[in-house]
Amino acid sequence: MKDTSIINIKKYTDGKIEDKEDLVASERNINIFLNGDHYINLMCTPCYIHELAIGFLFSEGIIKSFDDIKSIKSSSSGNVFIYTRDTIFFDKEKRVLTSGCLASSINLSSLNYIGLSKLSDGMKIKGREILSKMNDFNKHSEVFIKTGGVHSAALAIEGEDLIFYEDVGRHNAIDKIVGNAVMNKKDLNKAIILTSGRISSEIAIKASKLKIPVLCSHSAATDLAIEIAIKVNLTLIGFARFNRMNIYSGENRIIF
Amino acid sequence: MKDTSIINIKKYTDGKIEDKEDLVASERNINIFLNGDHYINLMCTPCYIHELAIGFLFSEGIIKSFDDIKSIKSSSSGNVFIYTRDTIFFDKEKRVLTSGCLASSINLSSLNYIGLSKLSDGMKIKGREILSKMNDFNKHSEVFIKTGGVHSAALAIEGEDLIFYEDVGRHNAIDKIVGNAVMNKKDLNKAIILTSGRISSEIAIKASKLKIPVLCSHSAATDLAIEIAIKVNLTLIGFARFNRMNIYSGENRIIF
Repeated sequence: MKDTSIINIKKYTDGKIEDKEDLVASERNINIFLNGDHYINLMCTPCYIHELAIGFLFSEGIIKSFDDIKSIKSSSSGNVFIYTRDTIFFDKEKRVLTSGCLASSINLSSLNYIGLSKLSDGMKIKGREILSKMNDFNKHSEVFIKTGGVHSAALAIEGEDLIFYEDVGRHNAIDKIVGNAVMNKKDLNKAIILTSGRISSEIAIKASKLKIPVLCSHSAATDLAIEIAIKVNLTLIGFARFNRMNIYSGENRIIF
Repeated sequence: MKDTSIINIKKYTDGKIEDKEDLVASERNINIFLNGDHYINLMCTPCYIHELAIGFLFSEGIIKSFDDIKSIKSSSSGNVFIYTRDTIFFDKEKRVLTSGCLASSINLSSLNYIGLSKLSDGMKIKGREILSKMNDFNKHSEVFIKTGGVHSAALAIEGEDLIFYEDVGRHNAIDKIVGNAVMNKKDLNKAIILTSGRISSEIAIKASKLKIPVLCSHSAATDLAIEIAIKVNLTLIGFARFNRMNIYSGENRIIF
Protein backbone atom coordinates (compact mmCIF):
# COMPACT_ATOMS: atom_id res chain seq x y z
CA MET A 1 0.00 0.00 0.00
CA LYS A 2 1.16 3.52 -0.75
CA ASP A 3 1.80 6.44 1.57
CA THR A 4 0.45 9.10 -0.81
CA SER A 5 -2.32 9.51 -3.41
CA ILE A 6 -2.61 11.84 -6.38
CA ILE A 7 -5.87 13.78 -6.46
CA ASN A 8 -7.42 16.59 -8.48
CA ILE A 9 -7.94 19.85 -6.64
CA LYS A 10 -9.08 23.38 -7.33
CA LYS A 11 -6.39 25.79 -6.25
CA TYR A 12 -7.84 29.15 -5.17
CA THR A 13 -5.58 32.22 -5.14
CA ASP A 14 -6.92 35.77 -4.80
CA GLY A 15 -10.29 34.92 -6.30
CA LYS A 16 -8.83 32.92 -9.20
CA ILE A 17 -9.28 29.19 -9.54
CA GLU A 18 -6.97 26.68 -11.20
CA ASP A 19 -7.29 22.92 -11.76
CA LYS A 20 -4.28 21.08 -10.41
CA GLU A 21 -3.03 17.67 -9.37
CA ASP A 22 -1.93 17.38 -5.77
CA LEU A 23 -0.32 14.74 -3.58
CA VAL A 24 -2.04 13.96 -0.29
CA ALA A 25 -1.22 11.54 2.52
CA SER A 26 -2.92 8.14 2.39
CA GLU A 27 -5.06 7.05 5.32
CA ARG A 28 -6.46 3.55 5.75
CA ASN A 29 -8.20 1.40 8.28
CA ILE A 30 -6.12 -1.49 9.60
CA ASN A 31 -7.28 -4.22 11.96
CA ILE A 32 -5.04 -6.09 14.32
CA PHE A 33 -6.10 -9.62 15.20
CA LEU A 34 -4.45 -11.20 18.21
CA ASN A 35 -4.55 -15.00 18.42
CA GLY A 36 -7.61 -14.98 16.19
CA ASP A 37 -9.56 -12.29 18.09
CA HIS A 38 -10.08 -8.78 16.78
CA TYR A 39 -7.94 -6.59 19.01
CA ILE A 40 -8.05 -3.12 17.54
CA ASN A 41 -8.83 -0.96 14.56
CA LEU A 42 -6.42 1.85 13.74
CA MET A 43 -6.55 4.63 11.16
CA CYS A 44 -3.03 5.02 9.82
CA THR A 45 -0.66 5.46 6.90
CA PRO A 46 -0.86 1.92 5.50
CA CYS A 47 2.88 1.23 5.30
CA TYR A 48 5.04 -0.74 7.72
CA ILE A 49 1.94 -2.13 9.37
CA HIS A 50 3.86 -4.98 11.00
CA GLU A 51 6.02 -2.42 12.79
CA LEU A 52 2.87 -0.50 13.72
CA ALA A 53 1.12 -3.60 15.09
CA ILE A 54 4.14 -4.79 17.09
CA GLY A 55 4.84 -1.28 18.40
CA PHE A 56 1.21 -0.87 19.37
CA LEU A 57 1.03 -4.17 21.25
CA PHE A 58 4.32 -3.42 22.98
CA SER A 59 3.18 0.07 23.99
CA GLU A 60 -0.04 -1.44 25.32
CA GLY A 61 1.98 -3.88 27.42
CA ILE A 62 0.44 -6.85 25.59
CA ILE A 63 3.85 -8.18 24.52
CA LYS A 64 7.13 -7.75 26.39
CA SER A 65 9.52 -8.58 23.56
CA PHE A 66 9.55 -9.88 20.00
CA ASP A 67 10.22 -13.34 21.43
CA ASP A 68 6.57 -13.39 22.56
CA ILE A 69 5.52 -13.48 18.89
CA LYS A 70 5.05 -16.81 17.12
CA SER A 71 3.92 -15.39 13.78
CA ILE A 72 2.86 -12.16 12.10
CA LYS A 73 1.14 -11.97 8.73
CA SER A 74 -0.96 -9.41 6.93
CA SER A 75 -3.49 -9.37 4.14
CA SER A 76 -3.47 -6.96 1.21
CA SER A 77 -6.52 -5.25 2.71
CA GLY A 78 -4.59 -4.26 5.82
CA ASN A 79 -5.50 -6.89 8.37
CA VAL A 80 -2.60 -7.93 10.57
CA PHE A 81 -2.74 -11.39 12.16
CA ILE A 82 -0.49 -11.94 15.14
CA TYR A 83 -0.10 -15.14 17.10
CA THR A 84 1.82 -15.23 20.36
CA ARG A 85 3.75 -18.20 21.78
CA ASP A 86 1.75 -18.17 24.99
CA THR A 87 -1.91 -17.46 25.55
CA ILE A 88 -2.50 -13.80 26.28
CA PHE A 89 -5.43 -12.51 28.23
CA PHE A 90 -6.45 -8.97 27.57
CA ASP A 91 -9.26 -6.82 28.76
CA LYS A 92 -10.68 -4.84 25.85
CA GLU A 93 -12.34 -2.54 28.35
CA LYS A 94 -8.96 -1.39 29.62
CA ARG A 95 -7.81 -0.10 26.24
CA VAL A 96 -7.58 3.64 26.03
CA LEU A 97 -9.55 5.80 23.71
CA THR A 98 -7.82 9.04 23.00
CA SER A 99 -10.40 10.08 20.51
CA GLY A 100 -13.70 8.78 19.37
CA CYS A 101 -15.42 8.50 16.08
CA LEU A 102 -17.05 5.95 13.86
CA ALA A 103 -14.08 5.28 11.70
CA SER A 104 -14.02 1.63 12.66
CA SER A 105 -17.09 1.09 10.61
CA ILE A 106 -15.95 3.05 7.57
CA ASN A 107 -17.36 1.38 4.54
CA LEU A 108 -17.49 3.87 1.75
CA SER A 109 -19.94 1.87 -0.32
CA SER A 110 -22.45 2.18 2.47
CA LEU A 111 -22.56 5.65 3.96
CA ASN A 112 -25.75 4.94 5.83
CA TYR A 113 -23.89 2.38 7.84
CA ILE A 114 -21.85 5.13 9.48
CA GLY A 115 -24.88 7.34 9.84
CA LEU A 116 -24.09 9.66 6.96
CA SER A 117 -26.23 10.99 4.18
CA LYS A 118 -25.60 13.49 1.37
CA LEU A 119 -25.44 17.13 2.41
CA SER A 120 -27.77 19.50 0.60
CA ASP A 121 -26.47 22.08 -1.87
CA GLY A 122 -28.26 25.10 -0.40
CA MET A 123 -25.33 27.10 0.94
CA LYS A 124 -23.21 29.48 -1.14
CA ILE A 125 -20.28 31.50 0.14
CA LYS A 126 -17.60 33.70 -1.38
CA GLY A 127 -14.09 32.29 -1.39
CA ARG A 128 -12.70 35.49 0.07
CA GLU A 129 -15.22 35.31 2.92
CA ILE A 130 -13.98 31.85 3.90
CA LEU A 131 -10.42 33.16 3.95
CA SER A 132 -11.46 36.20 5.95
CA LYS A 133 -13.11 33.93 8.56
CA MET A 134 -9.97 31.78 8.63
CA ASN A 135 -7.85 34.84 9.30
CA ASP A 136 -10.18 35.87 12.18
CA PHE A 137 -9.96 32.33 13.48
CA ASN A 138 -6.17 32.38 13.58
CA LYS A 139 -6.23 35.51 15.75
CA HIS A 140 -8.41 33.76 18.38
CA SER A 141 -5.85 31.12 19.34
CA GLU A 142 -4.83 32.38 22.78
CA VAL A 143 -3.60 29.12 24.28
CA PHE A 144 -1.75 28.26 21.08
CA ILE A 145 -0.08 31.65 21.01
CA LYS A 146 0.98 31.20 24.64
CA THR A 147 2.06 27.56 24.47
CA GLY A 148 2.18 26.25 20.89
CA GLY A 149 0.68 23.10 22.36
CA VAL A 150 -2.98 22.97 21.33
CA HIS A 151 -5.25 22.70 18.33
CA SER A 152 -8.18 24.98 17.78
CA ALA A 153 -11.54 24.65 16.09
CA ALA A 154 -14.35 27.09 15.46
CA LEU A 155 -17.85 27.16 14.12
CA ALA A 156 -18.67 30.12 11.89
CA ILE A 157 -22.40 30.87 11.58
CA GLU A 158 -23.52 33.86 9.53
CA GLY A 159 -24.24 36.92 11.67
CA GLU A 160 -22.88 35.33 14.87
CA ASP A 161 -19.54 35.44 16.68
CA LEU A 162 -17.22 32.49 16.10
CA ILE A 163 -17.78 29.58 18.49
CA PHE A 164 -14.17 28.83 19.37
CA TYR A 165 -12.37 26.16 21.42
CA GLU A 166 -8.84 24.91 21.90
CA ASP A 167 -7.67 21.51 23.11
CA VAL A 168 -4.50 19.43 23.26
CA GLY A 169 -6.44 16.91 21.14
CA ARG A 170 -7.32 17.73 17.54
CA HIS A 171 -10.54 15.70 17.82
CA ASN A 172 -11.48 17.15 21.19
CA ALA A 173 -11.38 20.72 19.86
CA ILE A 174 -13.89 19.69 17.18
CA ASP A 175 -16.01 17.81 19.73
CA LYS A 176 -16.19 20.94 21.89
CA ILE A 177 -17.63 23.03 19.06
CA VAL A 178 -19.98 20.15 18.24
CA GLY A 179 -21.05 20.02 21.89
CA ASN A 180 -21.69 23.75 21.97
CA ALA A 181 -23.74 23.55 18.76
CA VAL A 182 -25.79 20.61 20.08
CA MET A 183 -26.37 22.25 23.48
CA ASN A 184 -27.47 25.53 21.88
CA LYS A 185 -29.45 23.89 19.07
CA LYS A 186 -27.65 25.88 16.42
CA ASP A 187 -28.88 25.83 12.86
CA LEU A 188 -25.89 24.36 11.10
CA ASN A 189 -27.17 24.26 7.52
CA LYS A 190 -24.99 27.22 6.59
CA ALA A 191 -22.21 26.85 9.13
CA ILE A 192 -18.49 26.37 8.53
CA ILE A 193 -16.04 24.42 10.66
CA LEU A 194 -12.61 26.02 10.83
CA THR A 195 -9.73 24.01 12.27
CA SER A 196 -6.00 24.31 12.77
CA GLY A 197 -5.58 20.54 12.61
CA ARG A 198 -5.17 18.07 9.81
CA ILE A 199 -8.35 16.63 8.32
CA SER A 200 -8.38 12.87 8.72
CA SER A 201 -11.39 10.65 8.04
CA GLU A 202 -12.87 11.05 11.53
CA ILE A 203 -12.93 14.82 11.23
CA ALA A 204 -14.69 14.65 7.85
CA ILE A 205 -17.20 12.21 9.37
CA LYS A 206 -17.81 14.49 12.35
CA ALA A 207 -18.59 17.45 10.05
CA SER A 208 -20.86 15.30 7.89
CA LYS A 209 -22.78 13.94 10.86
CA LEU A 210 -23.47 17.47 12.06
CA LYS A 211 -24.68 18.32 8.53
CA ILE A 212 -22.21 21.18 8.37
CA PRO A 213 -21.57 21.80 4.69
CA VAL A 214 -18.09 23.39 4.79
CA LEU A 215 -14.96 22.14 6.58
CA CYS A 216 -11.87 24.30 6.26
CA SER A 217 -8.41 23.64 7.64
CA HIS A 218 -5.17 25.51 7.99
CA SER A 219 -3.45 22.16 7.34
CA ALA A 220 -3.62 19.13 5.02
CA ALA A 221 -6.36 16.54 4.40
CA THR A 222 -5.89 12.79 3.91
CA ASP A 223 -7.09 10.92 0.83
CA LEU A 224 -9.73 9.09 2.86
CA ALA A 225 -11.13 12.33 4.27
CA ILE A 226 -11.37 13.68 0.72
CA GLU A 227 -13.07 10.48 -0.51
CA ILE A 228 -15.65 10.77 2.26
CA ALA A 229 -16.17 14.49 1.56
CA ILE A 230 -16.84 13.79 -2.13
CA LYS A 231 -19.32 11.02 -1.28
CA VAL A 232 -21.31 13.16 1.16
CA ASN A 233 -21.05 16.41 -0.82
CA LEU A 234 -19.04 18.17 1.89
CA THR A 235 -16.98 21.21 0.86
CA LEU A 236 -13.51 20.31 2.07
CA ILE A 237 -10.72 22.90 2.04
CA GLY A 238 -7.11 22.58 3.14
CA PHE A 239 -4.12 24.87 3.50
CA ALA A 240 -6.40 27.92 3.85
CA ARG A 241 -3.81 30.61 4.46
CA PHE A 242 -3.90 34.34 3.72
CA ASN A 243 -5.14 34.63 0.11
CA ARG A 244 -5.18 30.98 -0.97
CA MET A 245 -6.62 27.56 -0.29
CA ASN A 246 -6.89 24.08 -1.82
CA ILE A 247 -10.47 23.00 -2.53
CA TYR A 248 -10.72 19.21 -2.45
CA SER A 249 -14.46 18.79 -2.92
CA GLY A 250 -17.80 20.61 -2.99
CA GLU A 251 -16.53 23.65 -4.93
CA ASN A 252 -20.12 24.22 -6.12
CA ARG A 253 -20.78 26.03 -2.81
CA ILE A 254 -17.99 28.54 -3.36
CA ILE A 255 -18.47 31.78 -5.31
CA PHE A 256 -15.32 32.87 -7.07
CA MET B 1 -9.50 23.75 35.74
CA LYS B 2 -6.97 25.77 33.78
CA ASP B 3 -5.86 25.50 30.18
CA THR B 4 -2.19 26.32 30.85
CA SER B 5 0.45 25.72 33.54
CA ILE B 6 3.59 27.65 34.43
CA ILE B 7 6.70 25.49 34.61
CA ASN B 8 10.45 25.97 35.02
CA ILE B 9 12.54 25.12 32.00
CA LYS B 10 16.16 25.29 30.88
CA LYS B 11 16.36 27.24 27.66
CA TYR B 12 19.29 26.12 25.51
CA THR B 13 20.64 28.47 22.83
CA ASP B 14 23.94 27.87 21.03
CA GLY B 15 25.46 25.91 23.91
CA LYS B 16 24.32 28.38 26.58
CA ILE B 17 21.70 27.52 29.17
CA GLU B 18 19.27 29.83 30.91
CA ASP B 19 16.66 29.18 33.64
CA LYS B 20 13.25 30.43 32.57
CA GLU B 21 9.58 30.17 33.33
CA ASP B 22 7.41 28.91 30.50
CA LEU B 23 3.71 28.40 29.84
CA VAL B 24 2.62 24.97 28.60
CA ALA B 25 -0.77 23.53 27.69
CA SER B 26 -2.61 21.61 30.41
CA GLU B 27 -3.58 18.02 29.76
CA ARG B 28 -5.87 16.00 32.03
CA ASN B 29 -7.72 12.76 32.15
CA ILE B 30 -11.51 13.08 32.08
CA ASN B 31 -14.02 10.28 32.44
CA ILE B 32 -17.47 10.31 30.95
CA PHE B 33 -20.10 8.29 32.79
CA LEU B 34 -23.32 7.55 30.93
CA ASN B 35 -26.35 6.61 33.01
CA GLY B 36 -24.03 5.49 35.77
CA ASP B 37 -21.71 3.37 33.62
CA HIS B 38 -18.19 4.39 32.72
CA TYR B 39 -18.31 5.20 29.03
CA ILE B 40 -14.93 6.62 28.10
CA ASN B 41 -11.72 8.14 29.28
CA LEU B 42 -10.32 11.06 27.30
CA MET B 43 -7.07 12.97 27.57
CA CYS B 44 -7.87 16.63 26.95
CA THR B 45 -7.54 20.27 27.86
CA PRO B 46 -9.71 20.27 31.00
CA CYS B 47 -11.94 23.22 30.10
CA TYR B 48 -15.46 23.13 28.68
CA ILE B 49 -15.74 19.47 29.51
CA HIS B 50 -19.55 19.50 29.25
CA GLU B 51 -19.22 20.63 25.63
CA LEU B 52 -16.57 17.97 25.07
CA ALA B 53 -18.73 15.21 26.58
CA ILE B 54 -21.87 16.20 24.67
CA GLY B 55 -19.93 16.67 21.43
CA PHE B 56 -18.25 13.31 21.89
CA LEU B 57 -21.51 11.45 22.54
CA PHE B 58 -23.14 13.18 19.58
CA SER B 59 -20.24 12.35 17.28
CA GLU B 60 -20.41 8.74 18.45
CA GLY B 61 -24.12 8.66 17.59
CA ILE B 62 -25.04 7.94 21.22
CA ILE B 63 -27.28 11.01 21.44
CA LYS B 64 -29.22 12.59 18.57
CA SER B 65 -29.91 15.97 20.16
CA PHE B 66 -29.58 17.83 23.44
CA ASP B 67 -33.20 16.87 24.18
CA ASP B 68 -31.94 13.32 24.82
CA ILE B 69 -30.09 14.60 27.90
CA LYS B 70 -31.83 14.61 31.29
CA SER B 71 -28.87 15.95 33.29
CA ILE B 72 -25.18 16.69 33.03
CA LYS B 73 -22.89 17.32 35.99
CA SER B 74 -19.18 17.20 36.61
CA SER B 75 -16.87 16.84 39.57
CA SER B 76 -13.85 19.01 40.25
CA SER B 77 -11.62 16.07 39.36
CA GLY B 78 -12.95 15.96 35.81
CA ASN B 79 -15.60 13.25 35.87
CA VAL B 80 -18.64 14.07 33.77
CA PHE B 81 -21.92 12.38 34.70
CA ILE B 82 -24.57 12.32 32.01
CA TYR B 83 -28.05 10.89 32.33
CA THR B 84 -30.30 10.48 29.31
CA ARG B 85 -34.11 10.62 29.26
CA ASP B 86 -34.38 7.18 27.72
CA THR B 87 -32.31 4.10 28.32
CA ILE B 88 -29.40 3.90 25.91
CA PHE B 89 -27.75 0.68 24.89
CA PHE B 90 -24.21 0.95 23.71
CA ASP B 91 -21.63 -1.57 22.72
CA LYS B 92 -18.27 -0.59 24.18
CA GLU B 93 -16.60 -2.92 21.71
CA LYS B 94 -17.81 -0.77 18.83
CA ARG B 95 -16.01 2.33 20.03
CA VAL B 96 -13.06 3.33 17.92
CA LEU B 97 -9.53 3.55 19.11
CA THR B 98 -7.53 5.97 17.06
CA SER B 99 -4.50 5.60 19.24
CA GLY B 100 -3.54 3.39 22.11
CA CYS B 101 -1.69 3.90 25.29
CA LEU B 102 -2.10 3.36 28.97
CA ALA B 103 -3.21 6.84 29.77
CA SER B 104 -6.49 5.62 31.19
CA SER B 105 -4.65 4.29 34.15
CA ILE B 106 -2.47 7.33 34.74
CA ASN B 107 -1.93 7.67 38.42
CA LEU B 108 1.18 9.67 39.00
CA SER B 109 1.57 8.58 42.60
CA SER B 110 1.95 5.03 41.41
CA LEU B 111 4.12 4.72 38.34
CA ASN B 112 4.34 0.96 38.68
CA TYR B 113 0.66 0.80 38.01
CA ILE B 114 1.22 1.96 34.44
CA GLY B 115 4.27 -0.26 34.07
CA LEU B 116 6.86 2.50 34.45
CA SER B 117 10.02 2.67 36.48
CA LYS B 118 12.78 5.28 36.78
CA LEU B 119 15.17 5.50 33.85
CA SER B 120 18.87 5.15 34.68
CA ASP B 121 21.25 8.10 34.46
CA GLY B 122 23.93 6.38 32.29
CA MET B 123 23.57 8.32 29.06
CA LYS B 124 25.27 11.66 28.35
CA ILE B 125 24.96 13.62 25.13
CA LYS B 126 26.04 17.05 23.91
CA GLY B 127 23.26 19.55 23.39
CA ARG B 128 24.59 20.44 19.94
CA GLU B 129 24.53 16.74 18.98
CA ILE B 130 20.83 16.50 19.81
CA LEU B 131 20.14 19.54 17.63
CA SER B 132 22.26 18.13 14.83
CA LYS B 133 20.24 14.87 14.92
CA MET B 134 17.04 16.90 14.93
CA ASN B 135 18.20 18.78 11.83
CA ASP B 136 19.02 15.46 10.07
CA PHE B 137 15.59 14.20 11.12
CA ASN B 138 13.81 17.15 9.55
CA LYS B 139 15.46 16.43 6.20
CA HIS B 140 14.09 12.86 6.18
CA SER B 141 10.43 13.82 6.04
CA GLU B 142 9.61 12.86 2.46
CA VAL B 143 5.87 12.34 2.80
CA PHE B 144 5.55 15.49 4.87
CA ILE B 145 7.46 17.52 2.31
CA LYS B 146 5.20 16.15 -0.44
CA THR B 147 1.87 16.40 1.39
CA GLY B 148 2.16 18.34 4.67
CA GLY B 149 -0.19 15.69 6.02
CA VAL B 150 1.84 13.38 8.25
CA HIS B 151 3.86 13.27 11.42
CA SER B 152 7.28 11.71 11.62
CA ALA B 153 9.25 9.97 14.34
CA ALA B 154 12.77 8.58 14.44
CA LEU B 155 14.98 6.60 16.72
CA ALA B 156 18.58 7.80 16.91
CA ILE B 157 21.05 5.18 18.13
CA GLU B 158 24.75 6.03 18.30
CA GLY B 159 26.66 4.80 15.26
CA GLU B 160 23.52 3.73 13.37
CA ASP B 161 21.35 5.35 10.71
CA LEU B 162 18.14 6.96 11.95
CA ILE B 163 15.16 4.57 12.15
CA PHE B 164 12.54 6.78 10.56
CA TYR B 165 8.78 6.49 9.95
CA GLU B 166 5.92 8.76 8.96
CA ASP B 167 2.21 8.36 9.63
CA VAL B 168 -1.00 10.37 9.51
CA GLY B 169 -1.24 9.58 13.24
CA ARG B 170 1.22 11.14 15.67
CA HIS B 171 1.02 8.06 17.91
CA ASN B 172 1.32 5.62 15.02
CA ALA B 173 4.61 7.15 13.86
CA ILE B 174 6.02 6.54 17.34
CA ASP B 175 4.54 3.02 17.43
CA LYS B 176 6.27 2.20 14.13
CA ILE B 177 9.70 3.12 15.49
CA VAL B 178 8.86 1.20 18.67
CA GLY B 179 7.85 -1.81 16.54
CA ASN B 180 11.08 -1.66 14.56
CA ALA B 181 13.12 -1.45 17.77
CA VAL B 182 11.25 -4.39 19.33
CA MET B 183 11.52 -6.52 16.16
CA ASN B 184 15.24 -5.84 15.82
CA LYS B 185 15.98 -6.07 19.56
CA LYS B 186 17.72 -2.73 19.59
CA ASP B 187 19.63 -1.65 22.67
CA LEU B 188 17.74 1.47 23.62
CA ASN B 189 19.67 2.52 26.73
CA LYS B 190 21.33 5.34 24.83
CA ALA B 191 18.73 5.99 22.14
CA ILE B 192 16.82 9.19 21.43
CA ILE B 193 13.29 9.52 20.08
CA LEU B 194 12.87 12.45 17.70
CA THR B 195 9.37 13.52 16.74
CA SER B 196 7.64 16.23 14.77
CA GLY B 197 4.54 15.92 16.92
CA ARG B 198 3.45 17.40 20.19
CA ILE B 199 4.40 15.48 23.33
CA SER B 200 1.30 14.51 25.24
CA SER B 201 1.21 12.10 28.17
CA GLU B 202 0.88 8.98 26.02
CA ILE B 203 4.02 9.83 24.06
CA ALA B 204 6.03 10.37 27.27
CA ILE B 205 4.69 7.04 28.57
CA LYS B 206 5.63 5.24 25.34
CA ALA B 207 9.24 6.51 25.57
CA SER B 208 9.45 5.58 29.24
CA LYS B 209 8.13 2.07 28.65
CA LEU B 210 10.78 1.50 25.99
CA LYS B 211 13.40 2.76 28.51
CA ILE B 212 14.55 5.36 25.99
CA PRO B 213 16.17 8.12 28.03
CA VAL B 214 15.73 11.12 25.67
CA LEU B 215 12.56 12.32 23.93
CA CYS B 216 12.92 15.36 21.70
CA SER B 217 10.23 17.17 19.76
CA HIS B 218 10.05 19.89 17.17
CA SER B 219 6.82 20.98 18.92
CA ALA B 220 5.43 21.61 22.39
CA ALA B 221 4.90 19.31 25.39
CA THR B 222 1.92 19.27 27.76
CA ASP B 223 2.19 19.76 31.53
CA LEU B 224 1.20 16.13 32.15
CA ALA B 225 3.89 14.81 29.80
CA ILE B 226 6.44 16.95 31.66
CA GLU B 227 5.19 15.72 35.04
CA ILE B 228 5.58 12.11 33.89
CA ALA B 229 9.03 12.83 32.43
CA ILE B 230 10.22 14.32 35.73
CA LYS B 231 8.88 11.33 37.70
CA VAL B 232 10.57 8.74 35.46
CA ASN B 233 13.80 10.71 34.90
CA LEU B 234 13.19 11.06 31.16
CA THR B 235 15.01 13.87 29.34
CA LEU B 236 12.16 15.74 27.65
CA ILE B 237 12.92 18.45 25.10
CA GLY B 238 10.53 20.62 23.11
CA PHE B 239 10.80 23.21 20.36
CA ALA B 240 14.13 21.78 19.21
CA ARG B 241 14.79 23.99 16.20
CA PHE B 242 18.09 25.07 14.59
CA ASN B 243 20.31 26.20 17.48
CA ARG B 244 17.86 26.11 20.40
CA MET B 245 15.56 23.95 22.48
CA ASN B 246 13.53 23.96 25.69
CA ILE B 247 14.65 21.33 28.20
CA TYR B 248 11.73 20.38 30.44
CA SER B 249 13.33 17.58 32.47
CA GLY B 250 16.40 15.34 32.75
CA GLU B 251 18.94 18.04 31.87
CA ASN B 252 21.58 16.01 33.78
CA ARG B 253 22.05 13.91 30.62
CA ILE B 254 22.91 16.92 28.48
CA ILE B 255 26.45 18.26 28.19
CA PHE B 256 26.51 21.99 27.58
